Amino acid sequence: MSGALEIVAVDGLAEVTPGARLGELIVAALRDRGGDLTSSDAVVVSQKAVSKAEGRIRDLAEVEPGARARELARRLGKDARLVELILSESRAVIRAERDVLIVETHGGWICANAGIDASNVPGDDRVALLPEDADRSARRIRREIRAASNCSPAVVIADSFGRPWRVGQSDVAIGGAGLDPLDDWRGRRDRAGRELSATVVAVADEVAAAADLVRRKDSAQPACVIRGLERHVIADDGPGARAMQRPAGEDLFR
Amino acid sequence: MSGALEIVAVDGLAEVTPGARLGELIVAALRDRGGDLTSSDAVVVSQKAVSKAEGRIRDLAEVEPGARARELARRLGKDARLVELILSESRAVIRAERDVLIVETHGGWICANAGIDASNVPGDDRVALLPEDADRSARRIRREIRAASNCSPAVVIADSFGRPWRVGQSDVAIGGAGLDPLDDWRGRRDRAGRELSATVVAVADEVAAAADLVRRKDSAQPACVIRGLERHVIADDGPGARAMQRPAGEDLFR
Repeated sequence: MSGALEIVAVDGLAEVTPGARLGELIVAALRDRGGDLTSSDAVVVSQKAVSKAEGRIRDLAEVEPGARARELARRLGKDARLVELILSESRAVIRAERDVLIVETHGGWICANAGIDASNVPGDDRVALLPEDADRSARRIRREIRAASNCSPAVVIADSFGRPWRVGQSDVAIGGAGLDPLDDWRGRRDRAGRELSATVVAVADEVAAAADLVRRKDSAQPACVIRGLERHVIADDGPGARAMQRPAGEDLFR
Repeated sequence: MSGALEIVAVDGLAEVTPGARLGELIVAALRDRGGDLTSSDAVVVSQKAVSKAEGRIRDLAEVEPGARARELARRLGKDARLVELILSESRAVIRAERDVLIVETHGGWICANAGIDASNVPGDDRVALLPEDADRSARRIRREIRAASNCSPAVVIADSFGRPWRVGQSDVAIGGAGLDPLDDWRGRRDRAGRELSATVVAVADEVAAAADLVRRKDSAQPACVIRGLERHVIADDGPGARAMQRPAGEDLFR
């Protein structure tokens, strides 16, 4: 057997508050439990924790929905204040049908509700927005980890997205630093010497999905460590998860 | 740290030939290397290996393209024989633009080229079709594993699919047995006691994606073992990966 990966959830992180230095908290929590990081690991952090640390929490009671939000909300059966927030976080509406609102966020992500939701956000009527720039967040967390631990694992920020044609949500990468997000096999050859066609592996998304398997949605486990990713971890921060965004001109579904 | 998962590739499998009993081969390869299976593991097998074992290999030289295939091929810049095969494996064309042909297969999967490709298929002009019913394949492999090892891990059959809006391909589940494919948290509560909304985790897809991280596209590693999935492995075969197919009436993108 070869190519082993190990994935563990980081236990013992306190509830994340605005201004929290997540990188430091993760290193401390790992140390408390005898765990250690290396520069060939990846630390996967949930979007929700990053949004809390960055103060991206909003109180729906303070949102005044405009006419467009009220009309959309009525049509979709949604809370007009939530729709107002979704629109304010979006540069385009991709689909608004039945009870589904799929948008393109200012950050370039195409997902339901601009990634806004209330799960695991303390307080009634409070919701979490996506980080403004989760690649920047990942770079900052990586710097904090490096300062606290003297090693430089990759950092991936993950959120749960649905996808067309399939049921359920998988975690994907919305931020990254130190990970080669795409593993491009085009032009390389298979075992038979035949050129591999159209094989670009979405490594960052697979890392996010793998990490989600060890977390429980009701638990205080906003971070995981994946060991054994040396093939994909890089010294510089690299292009980030933005590299996972398909340009509109190459996309058939918007 | 908790909830650890371990993922290892199964080394030493010979090239898979028609009629091969994959379940037996995997158990034997693990045994040769001192590995062992338990009933809380998942064995993830690549679609290509299953297709080879089931004789789902076609020689393009023997395909006679019809008029529709020739017209589509000309428009998309594809091999007309390949397009003929794609159409014969499909019940609907979802998109045919630029050089992309996205279809719904007879088995209900929506993907590029009906999942047909030539990578890692020995012989010029030879391509692999998807298994006819990969849930049935997974059940058969699970039975073979049980007979050879006396334990009953989950079996997932994985293939690399692209997705709208994102770059790159991730592995998803197209077949399964013994895995609860969806983890439905709707109606359950988060730590704050708030009901979780719209959280159905696509466990089978995340399992497939995680396994892909340890395989190399040019290697003879058509199978991986994931340890630590007891929360999702079930005794009976369950609904299979078909449960991941979103009904057309609930889909906004076809």
